[in-house]
Amino acid sequence: MSMAEEMLQLARESRAASRILATLSAAVKNELLRNMAAALEGAAANLIAANEIDLTAARERDLAPAMLDRLALDQERIRGMADGLREVAALPDPVGEITGLVRRPNGLQVGRMRIPLGVIGIVYESRPNVTADAAGLCLKSGNAVILRGGSESLHSNTAIGAVLQGELTRLGLPRGALQVVTTADRNAILELLKLEEEIDLIIPRGGEGLIRFVAEHSRIPVIKHYKGVCHVFIDASADFAMAERICINAKVQRPGVCNAMETLLIHKDIAETFIPVIAAALQRQGVELRGCPIVREFAPGAAAATEADWGAEYLELILAVKVVDDLDDALAHINRYSSLHTEAIVTRDYANAQRFLREVGSSTVMVNASTRFADGNQLGLGAEIGISTTKLHAFGPMGLEELTTRKFIVLGDGQIRN
Amino acid sequence: MSMAEEMLQLARESRAASRILATLSAAVKNELLRNMAAALEGAAANLIAANEIDLTAARERDLAPAMLDRLALDQERIRGMADGLREVAALPDPVGEITGLVRRPNGLQVGRMRIPLGVIGIVYESRPNVTADAAGLCLKSGNAVILRGGSESLHSNTAIGAVLQGELTRLGLPRGALQVVTTADRNAILELLKLEEEIDLIIPRGGEGLIRFVAEHSRIPVIKHYKGVCHVFIDASADFAMAERICINAKVQRPGVCNAMETLLIHKDIAETFIPVIAAALQRQGVELRGCPIVREFAPGAAAATEADWGAEYLELILAVKVVDDLDDALAHINRYSSLHTEAIVTRDYANAQRFLREVGSSTVMVNASTRFADGNQLGLGAEIGISTTKLHAFGPMGLEELTTRKFIVLGDGQIRN
Repeated sequence: MSMAEEMLQLARESRAASRILATLSAAVKNELLRNMAAALEGAAANLIAANEIDLTAARERDLAPAMLDRLALDQERIRGMADGLREVAALPDPVGEITGLVRRPNGLQVGRMRIPLGVIGIVYESRPNVTADAAGLCLKSGNAVILRGGSESLHSNTAIGAVLQGELTRLGLPRGALQVVTTADRNAILELLKLEEEIDLIIPRGGEGLIRFVAEHSRIPVIKHYKGVCHVFIDASADFAMAERICINAKVQRPGVCNAMETLLIHKDIAETFIPVIAAALQRQGVELRGCPIVREFAPGAAAATEADWGAEYLELILAVKVVDDLDDALAHINRYSSLHTEAIVTRDYANAQRFLREVGSSTVMVNASTRFADGNQLGLGAEIGISTTKLHAFGPMGLEELTTRKFIVLGDGQIRN
Repeated sequence: MSMAEEMLQLARESRAASRILATLSAAVKNELLRNMAAALEGAAANLIAANEIDLTAARERDLAPAMLDRLALDQERIRGMADGLREVAALPDPVGEITGLVRRPNGLQVGRMRIPLGVIGIVYESRPNVTADAAGLCLKSGNAVILRGGSESLHSNTAIGAVLQGELTRLGLPRGALQVVTTADRNAILELLKLEEEIDLIIPRGGEGLIRFVAEHSRIPVIKHYKGVCHVFIDASADFAMAERICINAKVQRPGVCNAMETLLIHKDIAETFIPVIAAALQRQGVELRGCPIVREFAPGAAAATEADWGAEYLELILAVKVVDDLDDALAHINRYSSLHTEAIVTRDYANAQRFLREVGSSTVMVNASTRFADGNQLGLGAEIGISTTKLHAFGPMGLEELTTRKFIVLGDGQIRN
């Protein structure tokens, strides 16, 4: 069987399973997820052994220490996967919800029913825990899932997949509901990305390179999130203590993630008073500053920013800092350089807060809060399958609801159209 | 300037205009649409003259009479465009609506604000009225619009576009808000379809060929609706009079549209009693029947259906008819051959109605109503920009709300993340 035929058969099994998953009650799905959690914990020794094969090969290939760390499974990470599945089991089931049921003049009742998307493909890097996390969210929302992790994690993913599939079987559910692609051949991804009839959505999870690769080759809709170049704008009326607290948190608390601040904009009216304070505070935390000429005037330690700094996603303790004339100037800068991820304003001015909320085009817009809150858990989605920085289907952090769609339902008593 | 540069510049003007459109109040947008309506009526003589150039060229090229009819503009059609704009002006503005604003445990208020998509490209066939209809819906929902109609309607579209742009200018709004691509060169479409940074959504309006062409060449998300193979299932418990009324309406009232019935499924328990009645009724209306062997037993005038009939979108007075064993058999047939457009059940059985609603995977699912109701106006959306039969972003008829998305808004008082 060719790779194309193999992937088509696999995807068709997913499609068939998705029809059954779509009809499951929340109780059955929750039982499944809790059983999977227990089974992962029970199989910890096997999973760690399989992971050891991946780790040995990775060490032989001189993988970077950070990548080895992401690849590694231990008791704690396995418990983390299990806890994640139990948390998703505890979330409300979005499927079946009927909204907006109205009676039309001719007596027809028209509303919308929330339904699963169908079959979701997850393409990710060598982080075995994604296998369980993504599977839990897709299954809870009634979707079949096809999982294709990085080739370095193949043995780990295969072992995790086998444990999870075992629980499907025990409940009499089709194994096609959760499938792990167990070939290291990258053509498998390319073949999957062609199957627009069988797969409804592709979610790449990983770096910009992976996401661009998937987006360029896919005939299936792709949820994209290239990067996070998050801005914080300190308005003239800002409370300085609050502004400092938010800046430090947004930049320093976890600099390597997409919702960390990468550019700080400061209103020119407070340049002289605020820049010395915030520059010193950031530098005390080890942050390297790259500023515009006015910033450098008041923060002598700052290097000169170049054009490239305004669009940079550093993911480390480096910060671009710029003085802007006013809110309009800040909005223009943000709408030019933003990655549509998250932007925040610190202000005491009601009108400026309102304008910032309305006029910033990013997927999460904040007033007087740290950009670090931009994730599904913090925003109350309960869990996060990814973040979309394109506007179609979902915009911003995606939870269970974003793995569903709505169909129209029409309840009549014999109406015909005139 | 090359075609690629020309389209890039045009799309960038749209992007710039979209930022202004996103901030307009409903009052301004409604005034714009009403002014456009009046201007179209005032310019009727000019529009008809421009249309005459297109019609003359089309007659010389021996265009089919049906296509000439779609291409033609007269006083009545111009009034139709104007009335359409006034109707859209009267609809509620979806933009700015804030939903689900909740207070998180740390005091952050988190909700979602509805925003325009940004820039929408409409690619359509030679129906000049689409120029005004699509423009009205896009502008009312705060989006900039790029219109590219069939080359046969170039003069008509250019003239309509000039009238509409004139009203943008009169209100001090950017002309980039509405742009008509005024070249007959098909490469213009191909270049537009590459501009994923500048254009947020492409909506092709026309036949399956146009939609497939756009979908295959686009890097921008495309709303797809290939065809409508709508099924009606007559359950064993159906009221025969209601079933007949619905079948005749669904098949005969307007057979050439995508929500007309193309396949009739009949429960085997009523084959002997219902088929003779419905077959005669349909045949009286001039419908040609193509049936399975059991159907032909009770409807001698029916031809033998082949496999191709089960997936056919006839768009004329031909109907495929099949006897099914039970609801499960009907569901299996529908889920195999459906185009995910619209399916209906006629039944008096509560449980079967519920199962049909839940288990049919199409974008509109009906109980005891004619499939002809599956359009945006009939379902209460007020207007329709298209129908999506793929599940991402929108599924089913699309109105103003489906031309928008939602961003997260976060209102804090200095919160930072622990």
